[in-house]
Amino acid sequence: MAITKKIILCGFGNVGRALARLIDAKQHDLERQYGLALKLLAVVDIDGAAVAEEMGLPPGRLTDFIEDGGAVEKFEGSGHPGLTAADLLAQRKADILVETTPTNLKDGEPARTHFMAAIDNGLDIIAANKGPLVLDYRRILERAREKGVQIRFSAATAAALPTLDVGRLCTAGARIEAIEGILNGTTNYILTRMAQEGCPYEDALQDAQRLGIAETDPTLDVEGLDTRNKIVLIANTLLALDLAPGEVETTGIAGVTPADITAAHEAGKVIKLLGSARLSENGPVVKVAPEALPADHPLAGVNLSEKGISYDTDTMGRITVTGGHSSPTGAAAAMLKDLIHLVKLGV
Amino acid sequence: MAITKKIILCGFGNVGRALARLIDAKQHDLERQYGLALKLLAVVDIDGAAVAEEMGLPPGRLTDFIEDGGAVEKFEGSGHPGLTAADLLAQRKADILVETTPTNLKDGEPARTHFMAAIDNGLDIIAANKGPLVLDYRRILERAREKGVQIRFSAATAAALPTLDVGRLCTAGARIEAIEGILNGTTNYILTRMAQEGCPYEDALQDAQRLGIAETDPTLDVEGLDTRNKIVLIANTLLALDLAPGEVETTGIAGVTPADITAAHEAGKVIKLLGSARLSENGPVVKVAPEALPADHPLAGVNLSEKGISYDTDTMGRITVTGGHSSPTGAAAAMLKDLIHLVKLGV
Repeated sequence: MAITKKIILCGFGNVGRALARLIDAKQHDLERQYGLALKLLAVVDIDGAAVAEEMGLPPGRLTDFIEDGGAVEKFEGSGHPGLTAADLLAQRKADILVETTPTNLKDGEPARTHFMAAIDNGLDIIAANKGPLVLDYRRILERAREKGVQIRFSAATAAALPTLDVGRLCTAGARIEAIEGILNGTTNYILTRMAQEGCPYEDALQDAQRLGIAETDPTLDVEGLDTRNKIVLIANTLLALDLAPGEVETTGIAGVTPADITAAHEAGKVIKLLGSARLSENGPVVKVAPEALPADHPLAGVNLSEKGISYDTDTMGRITVTGGHSSPTGAAAAMLKDLIHLVKLGV
Repeated sequence: MAITKKIILCGFGNVGRALARLIDAKQHDLERQYGLALKLLAVVDIDGAAVAEEMGLPPGRLTDFIEDGGAVEKFEGSGHPGLTAADLLAQRKADILVETTPTNLKDGEPARTHFMAAIDNGLDIIAANKGPLVLDYRRILERAREKGVQIRFSAATAAALPTLDVGRLCTAGARIEAIEGILNGTTNYILTRMAQEGCPYEDALQDAQRLGIAETDPTLDVEGLDTRNKIVLIANTLLALDLAPGEVETTGIAGVTPADITAAHEAGKVIKLLGSARLSENGPVVKVAPEALPADHPLAGVNLSEKGISYDTDTMGRITVTGGHSSPTGAAAAMLKDLIHLVKLGV
């Protein structure tokens, strides 16, 4: 007998739709391999929701409808213009909130409201949106603990690269003493191109923008803020800290010159933008900065838009994981994994 | 309230003693972090056992005693000359068998007898010994399933490198389409030295022997048999196969010449001994052979006695994990992780 879990999906952009596609494509595998049936009770977007309490929404057909220019609140007799996530969460008819609205690092909205409503109504949370957690990690986690609610956010900490899984599951029983991560694909792409072609930062950035790897406004990536937000979440989770992003000394890559890269190369090194966390005698040191890694560092070969993270432990030595799609499908696969962990594996 | 689990530890060589040291050093962390108390009910070695049913054996003091030349059957009033693991398992007073006797790939003994006695008496199994599982994977797993017994064997599949965790937990919900692993530190050390110094195979092997990295009889490593045994276990577990080691085409590294390595280098490649498994239209293809990897392959930079494994998946892309101590402590840490997974995380 499969366990059925009812989902409210908030946000139906690239990542939300990729998750709907995955649930559609994987439903037989999920039942067979994990005894898990996922029912899409509602999808909420800016102007309303589609809801199908009994049968669940057809994930493939709904996604087709939206990609053909439709809106969830107009879907096949299931549409409810103006219906909000808070309304739906308060009805307590679902088990899990999946949060894929755009990340907002000013006040975390609308995800923060969704998180709080889910927690207060006893729904577990799977999040791709890192806003509320970056801004207010400890308070949200504590409120969730009080209510017996679980929160998983693999997709917010480098998508399909299993940053938290390796630090939490693969190293269980070992003490993590240091973390180093290449956590942002855009900046790693720019630094790799600069190193491979000797071109200045501005040229590599323009290339990345032309290829769609960097945004038109690349600030969040190139100033190291995305890396900072991820290392804050990872360090808070794995080292039991309560850091706010503003406490993390953050240097981006705009100041890296071809001369820096050449000098590093001549010393047998390569410059990477690292998010790092280290336990020192004076407390934790968490920072973001371009650093010159020796050629035999396990992250030195992580190039272009690939990512990677390395854990130094007391008993297992250093363990490094690299790769994993950064695409919407990669983020959706990370959320599906979180769902399986939560429901079937209890981790 | 901590959960207490009573352990029978079979084999008290380097790995068994490293586990006893870890249990001793980590007991407060385990209670605090996982609510887990481990009680060493018995340690069994060749000529008998030490048993302390009520209080549990003192892991540190027992290890000191053995390392000072003692034998378990003579330990502090707890020694029982001639008492066997089978005797102890049949008493059903413990929860978990930890198997660290030397691996025997002829008939799997004595570990096979221990495995069967544990299964029949309802004890879960944590194994560093890969013998019985390599020889008879499916039958042992099925017998365990019938009896509701769990078996974990991280330490048998590359120690602290989390091969199975990444393939089973970090990629949950994704389909693994191909696996490639550098699974043996000795052969990787030899190939790395050959590549770095242009020396012939025999010189690099002698160096490895002098440093204690290769055994006096290096057959198991250099002929690819250790890699084969590990990829058989990994592929059987993750791809639901039932391969016997004899079915895996296996080529070792003794035939790799400096000319091969130079030719690979000139083509921008590096030769590594890979254990690989791939799902093809005609069924699974599992093999062990030296292969020339392009410089940007995620395992190309895994050098000296380091190991690594790479998974190609349908939805997460390629995920690669490298590193992890190969030492007795690394193997013991992998067993401790298995214990935590089994008892506290249910995975």
